[in-house]
Amino acid sequence: MVTAWRAARRGLRVSVVAPQSRHAASVVAAGMLTPATEAAYGEEALTRFGLVSRDRYPGFLAELAADGATEPGYRTGGTLQVAFDTDDLARLAELGDLRARLGIATRRLTGRECRRLEPMLAPSVRGGFLAPDDHSVDPRRLLAALRAAARGRGVALLPVRATAVELAGGAVRGVRLERSTSAPDAPPELRAPQVVLAAGAWTGGLAGVPDGVLPELRPVKGQLLRLRTPPGEAPPVSRTVRGLVRGAPVYLVPRDDGEVVLGATQEEAGHDTRLTVGGVWELLRDARELVPGVSELEIAETCVGLRPGSPDNEPLLGPTRVPGLHLAVGHFRHGVLFTPATGDAMAAALADGRLPDFARRFAATRAVAAGAAT
Amino acid sequence: MVTAWRAARRGLRVSVVAPQSRHAASVVAAGMLTPATEAAYGEEALTRFGLVSRDRYPGFLAELAADGATEPGYRTGGTLQVAFDTDDLARLAELGDLRARLGIATRRLTGRECRRLEPMLAPSVRGGFLAPDDHSVDPRRLLAALRAAARGRGVALLPVRATAVELAGGAVRGVRLERSTSAPDAPPELRAPQVVLAAGAWTGGLAGVPDGVLPELRPVKGQLLRLRTPPGEAPPVSRTVRGLVRGAPVYLVPRDDGEVVLGATQEEAGHDTRLTVGGVWELLRDARELVPGVSELEIAETCVGLRPGSPDNEPLLGPTRVPGLHLAVGHFRHGVLFTPATGDAMAAALADGRLPDFARRFAATRAVAAGAAT
Repeated sequence: MVTAWRAARRGLRVSVVAPQSRHAASVVAAGMLTPATEAAYGEEALTRFGLVSRDRYPGFLAELAADGATEPGYRTGGTLQVAFDTDDLARLAELGDLRARLGIATRRLTGRECRRLEPMLAPSVRGGFLAPDDHSVDPRRLLAALRAAARGRGVALLPVRATAVELAGGAVRGVRLERSTSAPDAPPELRAPQVVLAAGAWTGGLAGVPDGVLPELRPVKGQLLRLRTPPGEAPPVSRTVRGLVRGAPVYLVPRDDGEVVLGATQEEAGHDTRLTVGGVWELLRDARELVPGVSELEIAETCVGLRPGSPDNEPLLGPTRVPGLHLAVGHFRHGVLFTPATGDAMAAALADGRLPDFARRFAATRAVAAGAAT
Repeated sequence: MVTAWRAARRGLRVSVVAPQSRHAASVVAAGMLTPATEAAYGEEALTRFGLVSRDRYPGFLAELAADGATEPGYRTGGTLQVAFDTDDLARLAELGDLRARLGIATRRLTGRECRRLEPMLAPSVRGGFLAPDDHSVDPRRLLAALRAAARGRGVALLPVRATAVELAGGAVRGVRLERSTSAPDAPPELRAPQVVLAAGAWTGGLAGVPDGVLPELRPVKGQLLRLRTPPGEAPPVSRTVRGLVRGAPVYLVPRDDGEVVLGATQEEAGHDTRLTVGGVWELLRDARELVPGVSELEIAETCVGLRPGSPDNEPLLGPTRVPGLHLAVGHFRHGVLFTPATGDAMAAALADGRLPDFARRFAATRAVAAGAAT
């Protein structure tokens, strides 16, 4: 959707072919814009791309607003990363060293300092880091805003599934569309000189893509709960809190309306989208360890999403070897964070024919092999 | 619904005034018919009534079938009650003594014997009891069966709420009905010489009931999960398993279609029907302690129900001091178990003017004071 909007702003005529799925990462994601507190050894390129994208957010949101979109729930309170036990704290300190090497400013805090910032944290929290520039956005509102802005720029939105890429003489000619009762007037095919494949974990289901163009994308299942603060009470956290609890990551992302997103599992389970006892139990257990007061919160919604993981866990952007055929896939856990940078990179690829420098590492034509999994 | 059906079989003309609520105990309940494994000190009268009602189930279901109702998921594999630690086992042994005194046959088992019956039980389970005559039924299917049988006997079912009891000269004249779009043809009132109040935890909301006729009913909130076994796999328990885990009761009730009901919290929280982090976490924690394999199950549905608790936790049945006005309320955790006995008692009260001996202890006209809570 961001590619469509940014391309339309560059003067291209754009149609988006996308059914709604409640398992799409964009509607399940918590919306953390936290490259600092997600920085990990071996993922320095992703961290840098995340920092670029995060720092584009304010300007990006201003342009969205200028295109008439509603505000997407952007919150700028920073992110607190905390450790449950001494092993967890040692691990966070290692990541603090990595951030220092990458020039990312975060501040080390004692347990007491953490609780001063977030008084509902458990007394057992050992310490942590404050990342003052790691913020959050509401992905559902962001998607609605992007949709509105795209529509305002003349983008046609077709709520149907594309079933196949169509080629002619080795170059893209368009896509074939599913017959759907949700869009009875949709044509059977759509002609276009350029086609961007951006269907997340479902991209591999598209027929007609020549071998070797699209690396295998594996769905990485995430279970997540949307909690609700009782009416009249303050949410148990005032900013995004990411925790490490006996080695397991967990996070709480508050919103202005009292919602608190609790996530998320990471499971390599194919296209399985079942909410499970084990997944929900782990989330609740770890959240309660960090913030016992979450026990009082309502479970307003349960979500299961599939993140699109590429073989090396990095995104695949821009032109492929098939003339006219582009990729914007493999964003894994970072789709919301990478939104502004992806939009800019893809609009440049579509309008100018090549990726800008900041995105060139993630060129869709690179050789990808299975890398170190996160 | 059972009162309506049984009264219609006795030749009375009956209308049921009842909207559907997804928080009603009848659609949330797990459907355990387990008076033996629920027997508790101080509740001997409830246990005896439960045994009477349980032992009427086979004949009751045969009569339901004879009236054309579908089968309500009756399972007769008995119930296994297990203890997680030695304190839990000591508590179960005490209850075993009580059952022996009441003449209820249950068999004490070692941990190994428990696991022989239910191989997925945790190795840590200490021991337990088998109650061979404690069975289960599917309350949603039972309600549908009762509805069908009642309709077959000419009972009129009005899916609207009664707002008030109407009296004339100190006796019942009928009930006033809510205007509802779900039944636009429903009259504003219904005249009847006899009215039974049986709206569970919502009965107290009815206007026009003279003071002192209806004791205060408190809603006792229950949170419960409906789990689903993955396709092609066997459910983790083959019969109802009730456990005591560090003093907290938990149960798993399997159904023929692979559903496993996991319940239930008991919370005195007024009419609050929020699903909470704390409630769900306790259920999952205790279920995993007893049967670790539940982790693989899907959470197919989350439920919150309100049980109707009377001041002494016993039901209130039959005529009140207002001529024509009856109660069938206060069944607390036992509504499904007490269904056959309640139907028989209420039909007798309505047709003959008085409760049969087996139900007389629960006469609506008794003096009730707050008793020992369970």
